[in-house]
Formats: sequence, structure tokens, C-alpha cells
Amino acid sequence: MISEHLLVKAPSHSYPIIIGYQMDMAQQIIPYITGHQVLIVSNETVAPLYLDNLKAGLASKFAVFECILPDGEIYKTQESITKIYDVLMNNHCGRDITLVALGGGVIGDMTGFAAASFMRGVNFIQIPTTLLAQVDSSVGGKTGINHPKGKNMIGAFWQPRMVLADMATLTTLPKRELSAGMAEVIKYALIMDESFLTWLEKNMSALMTLDFELIAEAVKRCCQYKAQVVAEDEREAGRRALLNFGHTFGHVIETHEGYGSWLHGEAVAAGMMQAAQLSQRLGWLGIEDVQRIQSLLLAAKLPIVPPPIDPQVALDLMGHDKKVKKGQINLILLKALGDACVTDDFSPTLLESVLAPPLPSDILE
Amino acid sequence: MISEHLLVKAPSHSYPIIIGYQMDMAQQIIPYITGHQVLIVSNETVAPLYLDNLKAGLASKFAVFECILPDGEIYKTQESITKIYDVLMNNHCGRDITLVALGGGVIGDMTGFAAASFMRGVNFIQIPTTLLAQVDSSVGGKTGINHPKGKNMIGAFWQPRMVLADMATLTTLPKRELSAGMAEVIKYALIMDESFLTWLEKNMSALMTLDFELIAEAVKRCCQYKAQVVAEDEREAGRRALLNFGHTFGHVIETHEGYGSWLHGEAVAAGMMQAAQLSQRLGWLGIEDVQRIQSLLLAAKLPIVPPPIDPQVALDLMGHDKKVKKGQINLILLKALGDACVTDDFSPTLLESVLAPPLPSDILE
Repeated sequence: MISEHLLVKAPSHSYPIIIGYQMDMAQQIIPYITGHQVLIVSNETVAPLYLDNLKAGLASKFAVFECILPDGEIYKTQESITKIYDVLMNNHCGRDITLVALGGGVIGDMTGFAAASFMRGVNFIQIPTTLLAQVDSSVGGKTGINHPKGKNMIGAFWQPRMVLADMATLTTLPKRELSAGMAEVIKYALIMDESFLTWLEKNMSALMTLDFELIAEAVKRCCQYKAQVVAEDEREAGRRALLNFGHTFGHVIETHEGYGSWLHGEAVAAGMMQAAQLSQRLGWLGIEDVQRIQSLLLAAKLPIVPPPIDPQVALDLMGHDKKVKKGQINLILLKALGDACVTDDFSPTLLESVLAPPLPSDILE
Repeated sequence: MISEHLLVKAPSHSYPIIIGYQMDMAQQIIPYITGHQVLIVSNETVAPLYLDNLKAGLASKFAVFECILPDGEIYKTQESITKIYDVLMNNHCGRDITLVALGGGVIGDMTGFAAASFMRGVNFIQIPTTLLAQVDSSVGGKTGINHPKGKNMIGAFWQPRMVLADMATLTTLPKRELSAGMAEVIKYALIMDESFLTWLEKNMSALMTLDFELIAEAVKRCCQYKAQVVAEDEREAGRRALLNFGHTFGHVIETHEGYGSWLHGEAVAAGMMQAAQLSQRLGWLGIEDVQRIQSLLLAAKLPIVPPPIDPQVALDLMGHDKKVKKGQINLILLKALGDACVTDDFSPTLLESVLAPPLPSDILE
């Protein structure tokens, strides 16, 4: 497979996403390293797989430091960021340091925020090793950590200098994580392109068995959608908000269950079902549309029903979400398959009906 | 006194600095508050003086929250930022919150960084109540906190929506803080404008007894210099670095002595003397130039000699400074009075000679 280059046009600078299979990571990222020092941030799961090779490929040209964090969303905290700062300070790293995120979305988000805030901003490179990070979190410059009371509440917009997505890293990805990433892939189809939805319906079983040509195609399409949206709206004043489809509902699940018990993509999957149901109760989607979404999520081995959460508790948790403006909850809903909008045009009662734990009869057959 | 409006043209947006005397703070800032919620961040020294009035003036239009931190540079920490986040989260503040910094440079820097990082960036307003904050730290968008191993190592560039500088707040400012602020005023003259240096020499005794017309004039000139530099170079790629004159040496003093024992401005004053001495040893300044600087600092009741620090320790501490590029220390030195430059064009021996504790004979009479 030849690697493909996409360009993201962000306000601060343009940068490439390189998508390929079994690439030499060090060789690929070297042109984007500024200065003479590199700090690789990774976690205890990913580091044993790729860190030695990457370090060996960089060692002749750069002073290479590492910061290996524990694996998991529950470590997406201020404490982890402080560990990164400490490595940077203990090694006298200067403003010309390049931070490299080697891992999934959690590592990417934290490394990006450390890069945004160390000395008020230094260079960084994303090497996403999960499907979720490759199609979503590594592109677009959203970085951050969780607050005990809310997900991604602390952070910055800080664009990487390049993104390197190697499909071969998915070989070692647990199946559950593959499914979680597929939730974001499905999200792009639902909000932006019904023809991609049809493509996914046709290819989901091949995708789930890691047909790399198809996976690369899916990753490329998702990155194209995202690059397009980010170029138009980096700071989420308008269209970028659509990328949060399913996320307000999903954040409730993640926060309520404790970070890490539900994977982000799993929560988004169940959240997309809730958003689809609300869209249907507003008369925007047909029951058969909701059924297509459900079938595709099930084909990707994703949950379609949230855990039982008291609707009032869920509403309170939504109050912490960034999509709240002037006390009114804004949600991303579907006008049709492939067409999303931001709206507060629904009654509290209708929202509560979607938040109520589903009856067995609510699950579509 | 009529208030004066200056405009800062930053890349993200332009914003006013309003300079006046005994203004109604609430009325002045209301046009710049977005949304319906306001969080005022202040400290235990400043809050008793102005907080009640400010809150009363805002209460009819906004939900007003407060976060009162302990006073001092030693509290410019991650822990303080976490306290601000906690107040924001506990009160369900949304992305439309406006943060108001009511205090000196420490409060302004921390509030700014909290605003930059809460929900990846929210609105904020600066009400600087010290001379140092009015002429320097409140303008230009540098925000941040200290790391145990280095000053201002963590932060962001994040511009306020407006800056309100009321000269009346200087009435309650301790004399030592007034002097510390005057160090930054003198800095502008030394790096940018010899005629301002002459003006300061003429008016320093009146300034030190708080002639408000003169103080307002000095603040206005400093803000104009800063606005000009920030408009050209927000992120300190070039000319903005000149504003750090005396700061690399000063940071060594602050870090070595522990934050808070030397005030920032005091450390900058002694640091400017060291930078001036190095400039003189390079043949750029005459001995009479150094003498003028020393006399003006003494007239502003500022220290002109750093505490005794081993030169090797000082060099090591400089290694943590943001001005280090590729391992080489860059310093801001004076080509002439009113004309600064960034340079690494000096021998290590010469730098060490300036770092060595001065002999009594080094102090100019």
C-alpha cells in the first residue's frame, strides 16, 4: 500500500495526515521535528509495541526522552499532565522541543495539551495507534484532560505539526477498541454523508476483520470530513459542533459510569442511538432510519442501549457539558441520515423520554 | 481625569485598555461581558478593597461567582488553577462564562490561564490593581503559572476582551509593590525610548508620591509600547522578546530565592543592572549609561544588586529559561539606551563575570 497524504488547513498552519501500512515511523516524522530534542509520550500498553523502534530511529539525530503513563481514560488527568511537565523540566527541555504522542486518544489529547501549555506552546506530532484516534481525536487540534466533574473540561485548541496513521497498529488493537473506533466512523456517515453510510453497511464485516485497504479508505474518508470541518471552523463556533453528534448523551454515560468502564466510542454509540430516537420523535427520522443506525452499530459490535441512569441525574450531568449555552441544552440531532444540525428545538419532556431507561419494547427488532 | 482608551490589535481580536481614575468598575466592564455568568478571581488582599462594589454593580444583570485565592507569587501554582476550575464546575458554568481578574500580575496570569484552558477557552477581562500589572502583565495575552523548577513554564497566549486600569487602586498599593511596578516602567524606557527615560528621570520623585496625572501618563506610554510590540509579534517570535529585558537574570533570582521573597519587579531591576553591565562589558553601553540606569532604579527605591548566587547555579537555572534555544542562552542586551536586541554574541566567561557576586567596588558611586 502506498501511503496517502491529506492536508488539514488550520488557521495557525496547514499540516499533513499520512495514512499508510507498516511505515517506518521515525523516518516519516523526522521532517516535522523542529529543534534537537524530542519527548515521546506513550502508555504502558502501546510503548512496549513501538517505542524501542521509534527511539532507535530518532536517536542518531535527536536527544530523545520518554514519558510512559498508565493506560486508560481514568488517567486523563492533571496528574498525568504534571508528569509530562516534570520530564520536560527535569531534562531542561527548551521551547524548541517536539512532543510526540504515541498512543490512542487519551495519550493524544494529553500530549497535545501539554504541548499547548508548556512554555505557552511547543511543537507536537500525533502517531495515533487506535482507530478512534486515527479517525477523530488526532485530527483537528482539540486537546485536553478531564475534570472530576466533566469530560474534556480543561484543554486548548492546539494543532499538531503532522499526524501519522499506520493501519498496521490496528493489528494489536483489542476488538473492543476497534468497535469503539468504528462508532466515530459511523458518526461521520450519519452527520455528513449518506452514501458513506451505505458503503459502511456494505463493508462493515470486512472492516471488522481488518481488511487494511478498506480500513485505510474509511480512515481517509473520515479524516477528509474532519479536515473539511476544521478548516471551516476550528474553534467550534458553528459547523464543527456537528462532530459532537452522540457525544452529549455519551458524556453522560461516561461521567455517570466513571471514566473507563464504558469506552468513549461505546458511550458515543449508545448516545447516537438516543440522539437518533429524539430525532425520530421530532418527526425528522423515520423508524426505518433508526433501524439502519441500530443495525450498523450492532454489526460493529457496539452497544445500542445506555446503562440505566435516572433522567434527572442525566439532565444534571448534561448541565456540565460544553454544549450548554445560557442554561439551555443544545443537542446535535439528525434532520435526515447524513444531515445533522444543532438545535434546542425540543421539549424537556421529549428529551426526558429519551433519557428514561428503555423498556424492552423500545429495542427495535 | 477623563479616562483614556488605547486599542491593542492582537491576532485573535482587538481590545481596549481603559486608563482612568476612580472609575465605576462594573459599569466599565459590563459592555465586554458575554453570556450571563461572571466569575471574579481575586486574592485575600485585593478582594476586601473592591470586590463588594464590583459584585454589587454586576449582580442585577449577571450570576456572579467568586474565587478568592491567597496572595503571593508562591500561590501561582497548578493548585490555584484547580481551585478556579472547581468553582467553575461546581456552579455549572458554561462556555459563555466571563472570567474577571481583579488583582495584580499573579491573579491576572492565573485567571488568564484558567480562561484559556477552561472548555478550551472562554472570555476574560483584566482589572489590574498593581502598577506592574497595569503597565505590563495585564496587556498582551501572556498567561500562566510557575512550575516548581521554573517561572511561567506552564501557560498560554490568551488575550483579554478588555483591560481596566484605575489609577486609584494604586493608593492602597504597598510602596514596595509600587517600586516593583516602576521597574517595568523603566524597562520600557531602556529598551524602546530614550526620551521616555529622560521623562522618567525628571518625574520619578513625583511618580513615587503618586501624582495621578503623571502615573496615568506613564501607564499610557507603557501600554502603547506594549500594544505596538504585541500587534507585531504576539507569540514572541521576534521583537516581543525584547520585553524580557532583565527577566532572564531576574528569573534566576526569583527561582533561587524562592518565589515571593524577591518581588518580580525587584528581581527584574537587579536583572536589568546585570544585563546593562554585560552590555557595557561588550562595549555597547558607556559607564555613564549604566550609571543613569542605576540612579533611576535607586530613585524608584529598587535593588540594583542581586543576592549572592553561585554563577554555576545561576547558569543552570538559566538553562530552564524559555529564552534558551538549541542549548545556547540568548539574552536581551542594550545596544544603546532605548535600543535593545536579542543576542548570544558574548563569551561564557563574560556572562559568568556578570553573574559572580559583585565586589563592593562594582557598585557605582
